[in-house]
Amino acid sequence: MPNHKNEALVVMSGGQDSATCLFWALDKFDTVKAISFDYGQRHAIELECAQELCALAGVELHEIFDLSVLGQLAASSAMIDVDAELTADGGHKNLPSSFVPGRNIIMLSLAAARAISDGVAHLVTGVCQTDYSGYPDCRRETIDALENVLRLGNDLDEDELTIHTPLMYLDKAQTWELADDLGVLDAIVLHTHTCYEGNHEDLHPWGYGCGECPSCLLRKRGYAQYKGIQ
Amino acid sequence: MPNHKNEALVVMSGGQDSATCLFWALDKFDTVKAISFDYGQRHAIELECAQELCALAGVELHEIFDLSVLGQLAASSAMIDVDAELTADGGHKNLPSSFVPGRNIIMLSLAAARAISDGVAHLVTGVCQTDYSGYPDCRRETIDALENVLRLGNDLDEDELTIHTPLMYLDKAQTWELADDLGVLDAIVLHTHTCYEGNHEDLHPWGYGCGECPSCLLRKRGYAQYKGIQ
Repeated sequence: MPNHKNEALVVMSGGQDSATCLFWALDKFDTVKAISFDYGQRHAIELECAQELCALAGVELHEIFDLSVLGQLAASSAMIDVDAELTADGGHKNLPSSFVPGRNIIMLSLAAARAISDGVAHLVTGVCQTDYSGYPDCRRETIDALENVLRLGNDLDEDELTIHTPLMYLDKAQTWELADDLGVLDAIVLHTHTCYEGNHEDLHPWGYGCGECPSCLLRKRGYAQYKGIQ
Repeated sequence: MPNHKNEALVVMSGGQDSATCLFWALDKFDTVKAISFDYGQRHAIELECAQELCALAGVELHEIFDLSVLGQLAASSAMIDVDAELTADGGHKNLPSSFVPGRNIIMLSLAAARAISDGVAHLVTGVCQTDYSGYPDCRRETIDALENVLRLGNDLDEDELTIHTPLMYLDKAQTWELADDLGVLDAIVLHTHTCYEGNHEDLHPWGYGCGECPSCLLRKRGYAQYKGIQ
């Protein structure tokens, strides 16, 4: 089987965080591939952004896998149910109603299957505990435990599988700073989607969106904070 | 959300092991549900057996979820590629070529999403390290680590999610003994599928199969051993 120790596979959602991770990986590894999952996201524009950005970055083998099973399994989540009201709590364990139980664990396990099949030793994900809104599967502690499971369950040594989380301890202003340091601020502004309301028409200095939903506010405020201290 | 502490969700493949687990769970829990994944198994008869057995056992909510993504992600595996030759090694890490990297981790993470959404605290799986043929994701060490990830990643206490592996330390003769103790030996013989070659026409005392593939041999010898010591 192939063994590409300096190759990375980036899990792309089409949002600001995973897009920044794609460019971080391009800066760090010889070869970068990207993978996305279509689990019936509220807005198809996210996956279109992921494709656009990969084409722009010249990233090979951008695959989108159908993961509608995730939607069927956790049918009560607002993230995948356009009729559900977005609330700050009311979901599992009073987590935000956009929570799909263990979504990141599932997607990273699937991405790991692809990486292991291809002999790729590095997985990259944009999960971040700073802005994690209570999502327990975004914490580094969970990612460390998952890395352990994937190594044990696939008989891999430490150097054969690592999950990188470059944004784990950054706030949104620092994520904008990282994009700027990597020289891709404009690409992030123009080719990612964040808005919960699906607005991808109204362009602002920080990107497209309604500018008022919790997700837009986080992105907008982070941008303003970064520009203010720049 | 509901909280059914004495409910169990059994991951069913249609083989002898998960079928025995279904009856083990029916003996132990107030309510038992079953879930199966269709990932393009070599033989559709396995899922037909799972359905048949659930109907026979009166198990509610037997759902089959499409997980063809697993086949796409690990396209080199013999388990899902009818043209691939079954070999004792040659796959990832020289594991049997039927190995899909981390298959049990992925399926258990998905089953956990269903259980957590439903407030079901017990997951049951037929994985077994005695006959594990080198599959590292069947070891209790891996299952323990996964239990830890699923609790951490979903913010659950120990009593809110447990993965039961009743067959973990049993050999095939002891698994037949367990079925007999539970009074379901005939159901296991007649309504499960094991044969790698897809033979479900030739009936033997131990069930249907070619009687010669590695999987049939394991089942047949275990049955003979149990009957011999009975």
